[in-house]
Amino acid sequence: MPHEPSGMSAEDRLIARYFRPLAKHPGALRLIDDVAMLTPIHGHDIVLTTDAIVGGVHFFLEDSADLVAKKALRVNLSDLAAKGATPIGFLLALALPGGTSEFWIESFAQGLSNDADSYSCPLLGGDSVRTPGPTTVSITALGTLPQGTMVPRSGARVGDHIVVTRTIGDAALGVVLRKGAGGSNGWQLNDRQRFDLIDRYLLPQPRNALADALRLHASAAMDVSDGLVGDLAKLCAASGVTAEVAIERVPLSDAAKRVLVADGAQMETILTGGDDYEILCTVGADKLTSFRAAAVAAGVPVTEIGHVIEGKEAPRFLGRDGKPMVFKQTSFSHF
Amino acid sequence: MPHEPSGMSAEDRLIARYFRPLAKHPGALRLIDDVAMLTPIHGHDIVLTTDAIVGGVHFFLEDSADLVAKKALRVNLSDLAAKGATPIGFLLALALPGGTSEFWIESFAQGLSNDADSYSCPLLGGDSVRTPGPTTVSITALGTLPQGTMVPRSGARVGDHIVVTRTIGDAALGVVLRKGAGGSNGWQLNDRQRFDLIDRYLLPQPRNALADALRLHASAAMDVSDGLVGDLAKLCAASGVTAEVAIERVPLSDAAKRVLVADGAQMETILTGGDDYEILCTVGADKLTSFRAAAVAAGVPVTEIGHVIEGKEAPRFLGRDGKPMVFKQTSFSHF
Repeated sequence: MPHEPSGMSAEDRLIARYFRPLAKHPGALRLIDDVAMLTPIHGHDIVLTTDAIVGGVHFFLEDSADLVAKKALRVNLSDLAAKGATPIGFLLALALPGGTSEFWIESFAQGLSNDADSYSCPLLGGDSVRTPGPTTVSITALGTLPQGTMVPRSGARVGDHIVVTRTIGDAALGVVLRKGAGGSNGWQLNDRQRFDLIDRYLLPQPRNALADALRLHASAAMDVSDGLVGDLAKLCAASGVTAEVAIERVPLSDAAKRVLVADGAQMETILTGGDDYEILCTVGADKLTSFRAAAVAAGVPVTEIGHVIEGKEAPRFLGRDGKPMVFKQTSFSHF
Repeated sequence: MPHEPSGMSAEDRLIARYFRPLAKHPGALRLIDDVAMLTPIHGHDIVLTTDAIVGGVHFFLEDSADLVAKKALRVNLSDLAAKGATPIGFLLALALPGGTSEFWIESFAQGLSNDADSYSCPLLGGDSVRTPGPTTVSITALGTLPQGTMVPRSGARVGDHIVVTRTIGDAALGVVLRKGAGGSNGWQLNDRQRFDLIDRYLLPQPRNALADALRLHASAAMDVSDGLVGDLAKLCAASGVTAEVAIERVPLSDAAKRVLVADGAQMETILTGGDDYEILCTVGADKLTSFRAAAVAAGVPVTEIGHVIEGKEAPRFLGRDGKPMVFKQTSFSHF
């Protein structure tokens, strides 16, 4: 515990006690200033991303505080990963309802601390405010990479392979399970499968281990947060192309496959539900083998699911019969 | 209006229509990526600050959207000013209640656009989310300055002069007026004075014009957001010193002087109420004349109000009788 100078407010005390230990970056100035300071690496660019999560919207109010903290940081880390950037650190704006317990704050800080260490992304600075609304966590994360090497959203070229990491749709199915909705009682999952799907929703697994491989191989990339269908549409629109995906090639977990046996209509949830935080990228044919090898070395399985083609219309997701699937809603939208 | 690709959500449409025009920095990537990208100036540091404002806490729910936007940006600009940094740009995390009208969003974006232009601080990126709570605006602003020249909070030295910009206490009195509280009906202000005080609360005037002068002259600086008394205590604690201030030297507006004639007890509001967004800094005796001249050239009046002295106790605010004033609460705290 640092010395508490006279006149220290309860807010200052909470920051000193729970958040100062996270401020390991020298530029955090031990949180005693209003700002953080970075001396950039010469010849490197800085990548910045900001994402907010809101209680009752992006997490359940009863979710444990350490998971809320980790989710808030990880959705930002996922953006840095997709761009090929190495994390530098993050800033936190935390709006807490009156009556938030010190236990909640301690658990939140502990979760944040664990992830800050795991991903080498220390706290740089922040702001804490009171809100009459739900807990709201806004994080701005910074990353760095050699100048001019950021993987853009707009770089997909006709002929590129479309690649995703790990498995798609688990988190979206986890939300359905968590809400006990969508006839999920009939999915006949075992406890392990139920846990795995819900866990994928509660705790994203950002693919920062793949950042260097993406930087060296991908022509375009983004993380899948609003659903594969909608996010691929965004990537294609930004690149002035379209795409064809073979639905049967989309990588699924055992649990997701089990759900589809019970209820084939959940394919729409899998492809459009979002919260995957996997990487969607495009890779030129000449770089695919090398990318695969780099991904294996990074411990992140990747699967090729389709191709970039010429056109301006929305990407097509083709079934076994070669016909494009029609979606009710292609992507999650807040408005 | 840019072309709307198929599958564009209402959220994407609002961002494209109202926020893309603000993304004038090339590193904003026209908001079509999940991130922003900066190529730092060689030999320069980057200064970062984040501040959130919440409806019903930091602004009144009926405040016009353009003023809310400006306040959110200006409280961050004020931090950059105090550190001697030149604005680079900002990231916005905007949480909006359901049913927020497009008119509100248009007005918000317009206010933000005006200030982004005025302060040369363009939008770099952002996130918009839905909240069941009040409108919450989190902004992270970035600034730049020559390497190693940031004005810290911790640099005050015994013998330095304590200096503040413009006038202190107006915003805090404006809040009292805005709420119709604290016997403010008896203050006998004219309409102009009432308007001026309330305006100082609604719309902070960050002293970015003074940034270069601070960088060249100040040993320590911060902006006054939580009240002069509490903020000077923080600056002194960070610097390992204390201070003596002559209350009669604290610069007051005509309106604030009029309030004190009617109700002398409002001196406590003036000195501890906060929301000033003036600069509090310390300047060595050898640099004071040059600092004054630079401040005049920048169009920002500055006033010397006291001295840094040795000690660990809270700074003393001395009345005409030489006795230290005793405060009920030294500073605004959210908890």
